[in-house]
Amino acid sequence: MLGSTGSIGRQTLDVVRTLPERFKVVALAAGKNMAVLAEQVKEFRPEFIGYAASPEDNEIGNRLIAAGCKILSLEEMACLPEADIVVMATSGTAGLGATLAAVKAGKTIALSNKESLVAAGEIITAGVKKSGARILPVDSEHSAIWQCINGEKQPARRIILTASGGPFRGYSKERMAGVTAEQALKHPSWQMGRKVTIDSATLMNKGLEVIEARWLFNVPVDDIKILIHPQSIVHSMVEFADGSVKAQLSCPDMRLPIQYALTYPDRLANASLPSLDWGNFSDLTFEAPDMDKFPCLRLAIEAGREGGTTPAALCAADEAAVDLFLSKRIKFDDIARIIGRVLERHRRIAHPSLEEIIAADDWAREMVLKIAGENGK
Amino acid sequence: MLGSTGSIGRQTLDVVRTLPERFKVVALAAGKNMAVLAEQVKEFRPEFIGYAASPEDNEIGNRLIAAGCKILSLEEMACLPEADIVVMATSGTAGLGATLAAVKAGKTIALSNKESLVAAGEIITAGVKKSGARILPVDSEHSAIWQCINGEKQPARRIILTASGGPFRGYSKERMAGVTAEQALKHPSWQMGRKVTIDSATLMNKGLEVIEARWLFNVPVDDIKILIHPQSIVHSMVEFADGSVKAQLSCPDMRLPIQYALTYPDRLANASLPSLDWGNFSDLTFEAPDMDKFPCLRLAIEAGREGGTTPAALCAADEAAVDLFLSKRIKFDDIARIIGRVLERHRRIAHPSLEEIIAADDWAREMVLKIAGENGK
Repeated sequence: MLGSTGSIGRQTLDVVRTLPERFKVVALAAGKNMAVLAEQVKEFRPEFIGYAASPEDNEIGNRLIAAGCKILSLEEMACLPEADIVVMATSGTAGLGATLAAVKAGKTIALSNKESLVAAGEIITAGVKKSGARILPVDSEHSAIWQCINGEKQPARRIILTASGGPFRGYSKERMAGVTAEQALKHPSWQMGRKVTIDSATLMNKGLEVIEARWLFNVPVDDIKILIHPQSIVHSMVEFADGSVKAQLSCPDMRLPIQYALTYPDRLANASLPSLDWGNFSDLTFEAPDMDKFPCLRLAIEAGREGGTTPAALCAADEAAVDLFLSKRIKFDDIARIIGRVLERHRRIAHPSLEEIIAADDWAREMVLKIAGENGK
Repeated sequence: MLGSTGSIGRQTLDVVRTLPERFKVVALAAGKNMAVLAEQVKEFRPEFIGYAASPEDNEIGNRLIAAGCKILSLEEMACLPEADIVVMATSGTAGLGATLAAVKAGKTIALSNKESLVAAGEIITAGVKKSGARILPVDSEHSAIWQCINGEKQPARRIILTASGGPFRGYSKERMAGVTAEQALKHPSWQMGRKVTIDSATLMNKGLEVIEARWLFNVPVDDIKILIHPQSIVHSMVEFADGSVKAQLSCPDMRLPIQYALTYPDRLANASLPSLDWGNFSDLTFEAPDMDKFPCLRLAIEAGREGGTTPAALCAADEAAVDLFLSKRIKFDDIARIIGRVLERHRRIAHPSLEEIIAADDWAREMVLKIAGENGK
């Protein structure tokens, strides 16, 4: 598992903990939270570990090495022959290299890191075709779509991605301009990491998911529809050629799609997973998203349509802008404004190499800082 | 196709008409509406026909025979080697013999006639196991369940059958006592035959569907839950071992489940089938059924739990009572009252033979007339 101390990483280990007869942890890597990593190593006893080096990391790392752990780079870990499944749970585009290494090695990848597919979907998809690697989605929406198309002979005609709408669904555009990071971090239905929680508040997350779905399920961006569904019970829907639609429903708990990816094609009973309460089943409401109030969603869909290096620039610009917002250097509505300006200036390359994708990523991050700096003056 | 002039029969031919490269009609049988049968024969040119003999039937029948049609009994038709699929679309328990013949012959049966499974589910299921016959559900709810479990390795943990609630959902018990056949025949969301429309108004139809689902999907009656869903968009849901739920949605149009049964495992694009309007997608509401207001539902679930000859007696009593209501000889709330009395007096046989099932059926019909007669005095 790459990214074991983040939200998805910890929830994956929750699932592993409840099904000890089914799983053995071979390797754990974390970018930060070395103390948490050390705890995880103590409990799950992986043979291999990985971590980003820093003085404090080295101290804990040396202790783990002394205890018998072997150190691997993320790329090495992603190709480990000992691993039946590689869980890619890193955040942002940092996981791209490792994802590509796992793809090249033909691994089965439980992919929670959507940014790598958004930035390099074409390269990853081509790599999967070549190596026979398999990508199993962990995102709740994409897990839902996957569950719905399971067993179907024909591809989806249309995908309906649902979105909770985030904490600012009922807000006016004016009110939303001044929201704080604390408010944005309070998601009404999901427990997630900080970056994806802000992305959920701007609806950028849903836009990235459109691009992710486009690559995972080979459905054109314009055949992917978004519906706001505040209850977060229906995790997505798939429409087929005959007009029939399948939906996947469950309590909003990431451990369910995580377990599904890990046990597929089985489904295992797990008493620690929540069930829907049919005796008190709520109404399910749906509405169209407001593209004007949530410009990030429009930006992402347009980037998905454009393709090439544009989604990579979008992804990097978003990551950099969310960082600035979380450190209180820009306002909430600056996120979309800055990303929009970055994309306006971006010079798209149609079928980019990995190097060109990384260059677009670097360029976009610099541009965010530059534009934010100009604004600050 | 057995029962070609009824609601399901005509809608099946609608589907066949739009997909002429896929289907050829081999045989058509109808119990009444000989004039409609003659029209269907003219259009679809089946080699074989079947009909219930009556003077008027004979006149049209003789013309069809003169035109080259060969006459078959329902049982013969159900076993025709020329037929890849037998569509069982007769109404009530009249189709039981033909269904059993098709099962014995190992046919693929698109089953819309729920009464045969309700009355003789144990015998049919054992026959299917022995002959290798396949039963493909046509009922929208059971088609939904089938679509949801398609591709799943493990069986359903729970089935959630949805019900529109019928035309009297909002009525008080007192107001419902006096409703007329005309009111009961106005179903809010489905176009169906007369008997099933009345069964939908009493919710007996949903109770029969519980028993049908119990046999089709091998799920205990107590693991089948009913939710009232007035929009008739979610046609049923299935909960799996891990707590994940799949639902099937579509416009309420029987041609969709009919086509799915006929083309399974393919799904064919068919421009004449409606699609959900995602731009104007309605909220989906759910509520528990009121067993006190709809005693037929409770009677059916209890009969399903009891098993043996009880469901056969339930089915026959319902058919007879609905007949009396449609001919204005009893009131709406007499339907449940009379069926309840019949079941109280029924002496259940645990694992009945076909003869014992038919005897229970005959007995229940007589009892309905007797009780209704006593009430009339």
